Amino acid sequence: MTIETLRTGIDTVWVVLTAAMILLMEGGFALLEAGFVRTKNSVNIIMKVFADITIGTLCYFIIGFALMYGSDFFGLIGTNGFFLNGDLSHLDVTISLDTFWLFQAAFVIAVISIVSGAIAERVNFRAYLLFVLLMTALIYPIAGHWIWGGGWLSTLGFQDFAGSAVIHALGGCAALAAAMIIGPRKGKFSTDGTSVIALPSNLPLASVGAFLLWFGWFGFNAGSTLAATDARIGHIAIVTMLSAAAGGAAALLYTLFRYGRSDAPSVINGSLAGLVAITAGCAFVSDRAAILIGAVAGLLMIAATNWLEARKIDDPVGAFPVHAVSGIWGTVAVGLFAAEGGLLNGGGWGLLGIQVLGLLVLCVWGFCMTWFSIKLINRFVPVRATDEEEEVGLDISYHGIMATHTSPEFVEVKESFFEWEKVKDDY
Amino acid sequence: MTIETLRTGIDTVWVVLTAAMILLMEGGFALLEAGFVRTKNSVNIIMKVFADITIGTLCYFIIGFALMYGSDFFGLIGTNGFFLNGDLSHLDVTISLDTFWLFQAAFVIAVISIVSGAIAERVNFRAYLLFVLLMTALIYPIAGHWIWGGGWLSTLGFQDFAGSAVIHALGGCAALAAAMIIGPRKGKFSTDGTSVIALPSNLPLASVGAFLLWFGWFGFNAGSTLAATDARIGHIAIVTMLSAAAGGAAALLYTLFRYGRSDAPSVINGSLAGLVAITAGCAFVSDRAAILIGAVAGLLMIAATNWLEARKIDDPVGAFPVHAVSGIWGTVAVGLFAAEGGLLNGGGWGLLGIQVLGLLVLCVWGFCMTWFSIKLINRFVPVRATDEEEEVGLDISYHGIMATHTSPEFVEVKESFFEWEKVKDDY
Amino acid sequence: MTIETLRTGIDTVWVVLTAAMILLMEGGFALLEAGFVRTKNSVNIIMKVFADITIGTLCYFIIGFALMYGSDFFGLIGTNGFFLNGDLSHLDVTISLDTFWLFQAAFVIAVISIVSGAIAERVNFRAYLLFVLLMTALIYPIAGHWIWGGGWLSTLGFQDFAGSAVIHALGGCAALAAAMIIGPRKGKFSTDGTSVIALPSNLPLASVGAFLLWFGWFGFNAGSTLAATDARIGHIAIVTMLSAAAGGAAALLYTLFRYGRSDAPSVINGSLAGLVAITAGCAFVSDRAAILIGAVAGLLMIAATNWLEARKIDDPVGAFPVHAVSGIWGTVAVGLFAAEGGLLNGGGWGLLGIQVLGLLVLCVWGFCMTWFSIKLINRFVPVRATDEEEEVGLDISYHGIMATHTSPEFVEVKESFFEWEKVKDDY
Repeated sequence: MTIETLRTGIDTVWVVLTAAMILLMEGGFALLEAGFVRTKNSVNIIMKVFADITIGTLCYFIIGFALMYGSDFFGLIGTNGFFLNGDLSHLDVTISLDTFWLFQAAFVIAVISIVSGAIAERVNFRAYLLFVLLMTALIYPIAGHWIWGGGWLSTLGFQDFAGSAVIHALGGCAALAAAMIIGPRKGKFSTDGTSVIALPSNLPLASVGAFLLWFGWFGFNAGSTLAATDARIGHIAIVTMLSAAAGGAAALLYTLFRYGRSDAPSVINGSLAGLVAITAGCAFVSDRAAILIGAVAGLLMIAATNWLEARKIDDPVGAFPVHAVSGIWGTVAVGLFAAEGGLLNGGGWGLLGIQVLGLLVLCVWGFCMTWFSIKLINRFVPVRATDEEEEVGLDISYHGIMATHTSPEFVEVKESFFEWEKVKDDY
Repeated sequence: MTIETLRTGIDTVWVVLTAAMILLMEGGFALLEAGFVRTKNSVNIIMKVFADITIGTLCYFIIGFALMYGSDFFGLIGTNGFFLNGDLSHLDVTISLDTFWLFQAAFVIAVISIVSGAIAERVNFRAYLLFVLLMTALIYPIAGHWIWGGGWLSTLGFQDFAGSAVIHALGGCAALAAAMIIGPRKGKFSTDGTSVIALPSNLPLASVGAFLLWFGWFGFNAGSTLAATDARIGHIAIVTMLSAAAGGAAALLYTLFRYGRSDAPSVINGSLAGLVAITAGCAFVSDRAAILIGAVAGLLMIAATNWLEARKIDDPVGAFPVHAVSGIWGTVAVGLFAAEGGLLNGGGWGLLGIQVLGLLVLCVWGFCMTWFSIKLINRFVPVRATDEEEEVGLDISYHGIMATHTSPEFVEVKESFFEWEKVKDDY
Repeated sequence: MTIETLRTGIDTVWVVLTAAMILLMEGGFALLEAGFVRTKNSVNIIMKVFADITIGTLCYFIIGFALMYGSDFFGLIGTNGFFLNGDLSHLDVTISLDTFWLFQAAFVIAVISIVSGAIAERVNFRAYLLFVLLMTALIYPIAGHWIWGGGWLSTLGFQDFAGSAVIHALGGCAALAAAMIIGPRKGKFSTDGTSVIALPSNLPLASVGAFLLWFGWFGFNAGSTLAATDARIGHIAIVTMLSAAAGGAAALLYTLFRYGRSDAPSVINGSLAGLVAITAGCAFVSDRAAILIGAVAGLLMIAATNWLEARKIDDPVGAFPVHAVSGIWGTVAVGLFAAEGGLLNGGGWGLLGIQVLGLLVLCVWGFCMTWFSIKLINRFVPVRATDEEEEVGLDISYHGIMATHTSPEFVEVKESFFEWEKVKDDY
């Protein structure tokens, strides 16, 4: 047993364990979103997450990973590694290629799951499946190549340690585009300008999701070192915790003093906003900066939520406020607070400028590519559920089942165990 | 600090962490099953899982482990190590005996939990407790000895890396026997041949279970290396992910195109089927083979579910389709796709034959021993709940409580806090 | 790469991963308690846990950690390390200070969460926030200093490996004081002496919590080694499992034979009692002693629950029986069963005496400081919810929302997305 064998071993188990934690975050996304939407659409949103981790994983394996991490072609795109085949020795990682892939797959699934929340309760399920394909095979991998795959933005010095920009800002802007095209849920905004809200179907369930996300985030951020011997791991973990705490505390206290009530969805999303915001800078900023970053993220999330309402954009679970706004803020914050190169640490405007440029590119890319993709998909499959499907609920419309059934009686089925055609009439 | 000390340390924490992940799978089983059955039996199925991890753990500690991993007696049975006492140096593991035991205990609990699902909603709780004892102290450990404890099947070259056969095929066949003896739930099959179904009480809850299972499976498969420096860990993790994704995707797309609806329970069980199927071969087969193995498992699971319905066998949560059928397929698939010895890789029929032989032995053992055990138990305690108990629900009948209570009022109790005799009358 | 670098790396990832597991236990506390209380107070108890992990984390960072682990002042209190600043080299840990802090932060949050359960369903939320501040900044850190920070009790030889006494006995006695001052829920005890009970709102949800707690406990106990190369890790893990199993099994069988029903809340709390009890001695006692410790803890928990009922003290989720009683028993059990120094292993009365002394100090401190703190807070903010708030439920009163909403309709809001003033009237 040599030291190098041991080192590879420990790096591998570290990355495998943190990848598993990130994959558990999919459970977090699914339950958070299922708890936030109305009961009649809970199963559908969980099934969308299952589409992300099943179909999305396969698309990334077959195509996406190659475009992101294959041999660089003029800083724009990767060109080999489809099916993980071919010479990928340029990646130069101490862990095995398999392990590296698993970690990256956990990331791509997070991106698409961000979008799923913003278009909850009214997207056509078949159209969503096509969008999963485009996002995991093309949109995210190409942009990811620019930052993490050796592409042009990385050569400029853009800093995004674990993905506030690549994952969350891009995903959140894609979510915004999707929510805008597909339009608000029926009845969400009335013609005279008033807005109404759908109360969350199940807050304890959403909380299960939030706790799984918080847990997984330690894997998300600290695991991004890809090496257990990276001396920054402890620091990454503590700033992740502090930023999440500050985000949640800010939302809790703000809503308490502003409205006389600690708003539960805001507290949950405030903590998540803190987690998103620290993701870019977790390896670069100090403990105290992390608290500030998190607290600002929590408040920005609330402001962005109100801004969306005022603009009549319907984002049922707050994907844009939590992921895009916090992700943008977190990426900018690197330019402000980074120990090396941050404006407030005497590093001048250079890093900040590059951060803003990179964000601009990623947000525009995420927004526009999603816009075009959904317009394209709409030519083949209508992206919006029909009025009847939306009214009866996507659970029954697309999955022939409801989230909960309290009847102790058996019900009839036809043809086979899976033939649910009749279910709709039974309720 | 020597390299050997470090190595033991890293192996130990790897196995302890993965064992904890497998134990979390018990939460997965409990919630998946509680979400799939009718509300009136949800608490009971969770309590059965608690019986598995409390009573089952103790039985395995006192008796089962010794029969499985004690000094070999003619390839048939282990003979020492009761209470973890005695000389177990023949095990020759780099980790401590305690750590090794914990990992094995997590496995035995999984086996018994598989059975609990198939007999949900109508088994007598006291009879189930006796069955837990027999399964964890005798049935599984003895068969386990043949494969993993140095017994006769292991010497033939049977390959089952993390237990598609030993855990899932055996457990699933035991589940089938138990379901057949105890018979279908009242009202499940009518006399004129039509079948009716019980709608799942809580799909989001079942999804929590599925995500915990998926997460834990990385521990189940990759942890089975029992050494953090095992170079196969990355590969095991990626094929686990790909097979699960393929199983879920196959079920999602099949039910979408066949029935016009993506059936949620099928998607969940399809992913689990992919996980079960790759468990035998995760260290032996290629990425692409894993995708094929998972996809086939997802479809076989659906076919097996329909087959059970047609045969009028009632398996409320799909234990046989998910565990037995996928486990058998996965074990056979090793004979087909193994890089070394697989038929399709030019290895000839040898390995395939041994795999089939081993499966036959394990399935027959699991089925028959369970059959006899339940017949035996039935002489002392009726294994079937009474009609009244089944109708009122096992939660109230055996635990004096229901899964959910929405009344904000206090209710009266007698004698003590735990005296629930009166509860049944209150509803 | 030197051996020392590797060692630091593996120790760091071990502690970060186990700290993340302990933080996931907060999800466990939240869901366990939310499932045990009445529906109308579920969100509130989850929000209290969010207050623990957001505000509590920040208080511990700013003040608490310094008092606990700063340079010792006459064995009484730590004096530096506010904001993690200053010279903390006296701590002499192989892992980084950041990593060490994260692990300790996970512990302090557990303490305050124990209290939150005992005062569920009737505490004023603003008053609770103030108590979080006092507990995490002062009460726990000062006592913690005596045992783990180099204070006077540690120099006497008091043994509490992972916190049966420091975390659970102290937290549980604080919970008792809080429950006594705030008084029982309205309607819990009638004037003629009879006691009535509130049925748990959601047992499957409580079970999710229990499984997360059980999983996290492996991090809690084994992670307390703070070093992956600690040879005791495997042993700690196995006795943790055995004690939990014995606690759950004892409660399951006792309620089965005593009342003819296996009481689900008792089984869940019995397992937790086993986990609490082994926390002090997990590194010191044998496998068989662990089984005994767990079984006794399970039964003591039931007795203590009945004792509280008889004393007309209202502890809705059993915080005192599970944490204080089991914690006290577990700490005493070290004096009885420790391999070195335990009375029953020929070590004489010395260790046992010190254990009892330490317990006395910690319990009195936790009880009295909480008593005074709550009396103090009550001068500024009434600690008890008003009758109207309690009746309508704390979810609507303090958070303007309910745990579940099944209406598919949108509801009106005023002023902003977070203005829930009107919600109360809508139901």
